[in-house]
This record gives sequence, structure tokens and C-alpha cells, in this order.
Amino acid sequence: MTRALVLFAHGARNASWAAPFERLRAQAQARLPGVPVSLAFLELMEPRLPAHVAELAAQGATGITIVPVFLGQGGHLLRDLPLMVGQLQADHPQLAIEVAGAVGEDPDVLKAMSDYCVAAYAKTP
Amino acid sequence: MTRALVLFAHGARNASWAAPFERLRAQAQARLPGVPVSLAFLELMEPRLPAHVAELAAQGATGITIVPVFLGQGGHLLRDLPLMVGQLQADHPQLAIEVAGAVGEDPDVLKAMSDYCVAAYAKTP
Repeated sequence: MTRALVLFAHGARNASWAAPFERLRAQAQARLPGVPVSLAFLELMEPRLPAHVAELAAQGATGITIVPVFLGQGGHLLRDLPLMVGQLQADHPQLAIEVAGAVGEDPDVLKAMSDYCVAAYAKTP
Repeated sequence: MTRALVLFAHGARNASWAAPFERLRAQAQARLPGVPVSLAFLELMEPRLPAHVAELAAQGATGITIVPVFLGQGGHLLRDLPLMVGQLQADHPQLAIEVAGAVGEDPDVLKAMSDYCVAAYAKTP
């Protein structure tokens, strides 16, 4: 097994919340054939990140790239995620775990969002 | 005063969380000169949406376009926001309030996010 890509999202009570994250996963998967691309959540939805990474390790993953699908970097990314990753790295020393910056910090994502906001304003009667 | 654009975000305890939302506001403002473009929050950060819309109305706004800067549509957008907007519309009947879809549901935003995820994976050693 190769290095896996895990899209890490917050999770919510309402199942419909996950729809754009599922689409994001499918799009990334289509562009990375042969790479295991999956979603994992902080809370309220399954799988949770630690159990999911343990499962990927058990399946023989050599490494994990975690991309936080969050807009802002608050306590979840500044505190909760590093704690989880530290524990995962201790539990799975053979696994190379890398954490990318939050998607919301990417200039191209920001540009697409501002395009959308401007278009939404222009569309209002 | 004209129609205002309000970018509606969740809010967080950590002030650094708001940084990409501030950049988004500045980008949208640069492309909509003469339009009041502002941020408002559901919780934990100020201004909150109801107080902010009341202030815009008091300043003479003729309408408000609200763009939810959320990735998924969960309880906050499916239940909390419609309740707030219903109350705001009752309180300010002269104000035309329009609510756009969440930024995370936009195909171009999704495309930019999947580009970012794929690039983050490719960058990992």
C-alpha cells in the first residue's frame, strides 16, 4: 500500500452537511488514481481521525497526508489536531504523517470564494 | 445607502480563526467599490448577524445579500439561519433580505479545494 490522503473535516449532526466533502473526496480520488483518498472527522461523524488512521496503518499504509478541510484555523486545528497527530505518530512510528495547511488559507480557494460572493451579490435583484 | 453584502461565518474562540474571512471580505470589497461589504458571525465573534443587520438597516440599507461562508450545510444553515432571517425580515419589513447558497456548495470553490488537496498530497515527500 502507498501513502494515503485523508481529508479531515469537522463533522456535523446533519448528514446532508457532508455532501460537499463527499464531492471533494470524489474529485481528489479521480485525480489520484491508485491513492486511497478518504474522509475523516473531528466529531459527530464517522470515521473519526484516530480510528481511521489506525485502520490505514493496519492496512499497510506507509504514510498519511492529512489535509484539513476547514476555512479558518481555530482551536480545532491549532490544538486538537496537533494533539491527535502527536498521539498517532507515537502509536504508529512507522507511519510518515504530514499535515497540510487548512484549505481556507489557500489563495486560490480564497479567490474562488470571493468570485462566488461577488457573483451572489450581482445576482440579487 | 445601497444594498449591502454580508459574509456570514460561524465564529470561533481563537481570533486567528477569522483571518481568511477578513481576507475574503477585503477581496470582495475591492471588487465591489461603493458596496458595504462586512462580516457577521453566528456565535463566539462579533458582530452577530441580527445586530449587524439591524445596524445596516438603521444606516439606511435598502437590502442585504447574505452569503454563508460555510463549507457544509448543516443545522446552522438549515435551521438557525432561516430562523434569524425570518425574524430579521419581520423586524425590518422594508429591507429586502436575500440568502445565497453556502460557498462550499459552489462547483468552482470545490474545484479550487480539490486542486489544493491534490497539490498538498503531491508535495508530501
